[in-house]
Amino acid sequence: MRTDHQPVRIALFAPDGRMGRAIQSAIAEDPTFALDNDNGDVLVDFSSPDALRSSLDRAVSAGVPLLIGTTGLIDEHDALIAEAARIVPILKAPNTSVGVALLADLTERAARILGPDKWDIEIVEAHHNRKADAPSGTALHLGAAAERGRGGTSPVERGRDGTGLKREAGAIGYSAIRGGTVAGDHDVMFLGPDERLILSHRAENRAIFARGALAAARFLRGRPAGLYSMRDVIDAA
Amino acid sequence: MRTDHQPVRIALFAPDGRMGRAIQSAIAEDPTFALDNDNGDVLVDFSSPDALRSSLDRAVSAGVPLLIGTTGLIDEHDALIAEAARIVPILKAPNTSVGVALLADLTERAARILGPDKWDIEIVEAHHNRKADAPSGTALHLGAAAERGRGGTSPVERGRDGTGLKREAGAIGYSAIRGGTVAGDHDVMFLGPDERLILSHRAENRAIFARGALAAARFLRGRPAGLYSMRDVIDAA
Amino acid sequence: MRTDHQPVRIALFAPDGRMGRAIQSAIAEDPTFALDNDNGDVLVDFSSPDALRSSLDRAVSAGVPLLIGTTGLIDEHDALIAEAARIVPILKAPNTSVGVALLADLTERAARILGPDKWDIEIVEAHHNRKADAPSGTALHLGAAAERGRGGTSPVERGRDGTGLKREAGAIGYSAIRGGTVAGDHDVMFLGPDERLILSHRAENRAIFARGALAAARFLRGRPAGLYSMRDVIDAA
Amino acid sequence: MRTDHQPVRIALFAPDGRMGRAIQSAIAEDPTFALDNDNGDVLVDFSSPDALRSSLDRAVSAGVPLLIGTTGLIDEHDALIAEAARIVPILKAPNTSVGVALLADLTERAARILGPDKWDIEIVEAHHNRKADAPSGTALHLGAAAERGRGGTSPVERGRDGTGLKREAGAIGYSAIRGGTVAGDHDVMFLGPDERLILSHRAENRAIFARGALAAARFLRGRPAGLYSMRDVIDAA
Repeated sequence: MRTDHQPVRIALFAPDGRMGRAIQSAIAEDPTFALDNDNGDVLVDFSSPDALRSSLDRAVSAGVPLLIGTTGLIDEHDALIAEAARIVPILKAPNTSVGVALLADLTERAARILGPDKWDIEIVEAHHNRKADAPSGTALHLGAAAERGRGGTSPVERGRDGTGLKREAGAIGYSAIRGGTVAGDHDVMFLGPDERLILSHRAENRAIFARGALAAARFLRGRPAGLYSMRDVIDAA
Repeated sequence: MRTDHQPVRIALFAPDGRMGRAIQSAIAEDPTFALDNDNGDVLVDFSSPDALRSSLDRAVSAGVPLLIGTTGLIDEHDALIAEAARIVPILKAPNTSVGVALLADLTERAARILGPDKWDIEIVEAHHNRKADAPSGTALHLGAAAERGRGGTSPVERGRDGTGLKREAGAIGYSAIRGGTVAGDHDVMFLGPDERLILSHRAENRAIFARGALAAARFLRGRPAGLYSMRDVIDAA
Repeated sequence: MRTDHQPVRIALFAPDGRMGRAIQSAIAEDPTFALDNDNGDVLVDFSSPDALRSSLDRAVSAGVPLLIGTTGLIDEHDALIAEAARIVPILKAPNTSVGVALLADLTERAARILGPDKWDIEIVEAHHNRKADAPSGTALHLGAAAERGRGGTSPVERGRDGTGLKREAGAIGYSAIRGGTVAGDHDVMFLGPDERLILSHRAENRAIFARGALAAARFLRGRPAGLYSMRDVIDAA
Repeated sequence: MRTDHQPVRIALFAPDGRMGRAIQSAIAEDPTFALDNDNGDVLVDFSSPDALRSSLDRAVSAGVPLLIGTTGLIDEHDALIAEAARIVPILKAPNTSVGVALLADLTERAARILGPDKWDIEIVEAHHNRKADAPSGTALHLGAAAERGRGGTSPVERGRDGTGLKREAGAIGYSAIRGGTVAGDHDVMFLGPDERLILSHRAENRAIFARGALAAARFLRGRPAGLYSMRDVIDAA
């Protein structure tokens, strides 16, 4: 029987991808993990939406938990994931940084307590000059957390430019800064009457996503079937 | 019978002090409050430690809740407060900003989840150039919240200056910036391996403390006897 | 004969406007200035584009310098101003804060030294939730300073939103944050390979614009006819 | 004859030290430089104070410029350097980042224009949790630039902690934040009446010091004998 004292064995679905190699480096630094593509305790998939069906099949066949870090998934993929999550534990995370997961959790809590009437929410993110999408997926994820906290859907203001733009009451605004080699900054600003509460995350480099993936894998080992998120990893800490 | 639809009547213990006047301005801006020094629903004391016995007596005699915003209280005062809180509801707050109260709450939560092993905590505050004490009382209040989150006492590093200063594991560091007319900035930094989580509050001016005092008074009206804090105001939101 | 030891007498063209009243407060705080609408040393106009012809006539008739803080001027106004500036000294400033003037000066210098090849420029500003235009006039003014420093026109990226947005080489990006009661924050970011230089201004409230207007008036007294800017006020310091 | 079109050949005095290896990586990334320990155009020394005499001898014997990045030098070393700089060009830099050099230049300019009367200067830096000295050498270097700008010596406030600390007029304050893996943040804050100007540098990692050393070497090639600083590299850009 496998216990917490034994290393968590990681099977990588796409070991040669950018994140696959980063996770191998993170495993090499931490003796509580081991790479084992044949008998992994947890399967980790950071590949592409096209390959999702294949990684789900492999997890279900082997009866092992699956961590899905793939981005760009659509509703059809979510249906497949939900089906497989009846058989094995699955954690889906567009961003596996523990710090970002905690930021989302604190954002939800702050949005619930402050409410939409007096406090405007603005989400500002900065990334390197080759990033093609704006706002970042993580910014939208943080906005969704703010909406959950407020208990409903908020109007969205993106790409402000021009005149006659007075801010809509209750809106969530997004701004995207692009330049240099910025690994990823995210600020959730609560702008109220004469005071501001700002919750920020700074990624110094991309190693944190690999380390967070390992934390998620450790969480998944031995869980019952079901669909999990980084939020559960945080709550179990 | 008094209901939530009627304005909260505020009795000011020291109406002519700096905060007394600020609270009068805040009442004038908000129709859900009224000034009533004879028949207040809640007594508000932002005076001095010397006057505390007198405001406690007045609250107990009248059977009304008491908000204590006075700073510089010592253990002896706390004993008097605890005694009176058996008869009337009392809320003691060294800083009545709702934003700062929420910042303390989020700090405690983040410190609990991140733990002391990988994440260093630094508390940085900035105030105007006439402030005489460092760190600010609010910075120490935030540090206490971080310690509660970590579940124990942390070593403290204040006033770093010199050589051979390698940071102690698990310590909480404090830095005090002084200059200009800064109303009050507080940053709680969680500095981890390759990532940072920073929780910040910015006071644009001092009106927020008066408005937060009113929020605390509204919370107190109709509560049972007992000792409360701004944390309870936040949790009731 | 008037000397530097005598107060600078200010004539206000629109004494009852928002800025007119703010300047009166600033004069009241500073004994080196006096209000004198009949025999001012300097005429100050913070009214509207429609009234510009009238204030120019008054300055030329009286032979006194004119400070124009009016915003929303167009090319036609600039031609009128240039004409009058042959007779009296005129300073035109869309933003009279000394700090912002210095920020523009430092931005030009940094842009010149860093060049467009390795360092991307992003200008980020935050204002209160009732501001209708984005980016702010001051942000555009800072962008123009950056272009002067680089020695040419730069592509502009405003309102980023969507996919396929890879940053254009040499572009200047603008982001507009809106919420709460923010008086005015401006950040000029130089984002390079593995390092960032960020030049920031924070307005705590709007009194600074009145004080900067007085500094500009003091600069104008006794100058020869010509067209000046806040940059000249800075350079004379 | 050597021209600007040929790569700058770098001779490393201590090729196996941490900075020696970093500079080799930077050379490998940039075809306008080449490593040539036998016939270098410029000798680069990032070793230790003890070895300074040896690197000075080597530069003078070979008649090549010398870049000294060594820290911890004292007056005695400066005398040796001045002597050698009569024969070959020498550039001494405790921090070879181009961004930091520009920050120092802008700091001097801003301090000169703003003056000490209304604007307080605070220098705040953050570094990883193993750094032993506070404030950082770079923070002190920035403070010296501010003093030059103000045209005299300023009182210094370091390690604020306690009561009765009212800020001294004209002082420069220093704060040191320590934690995590921060590569190096420096903020020079000018805190004035109701406004703030903040000049910041962020090092994302330590590669920038190697790249800045190469920029300094390129500057040195072909210069006349004399003592130079990173400031000269900036001014020549």
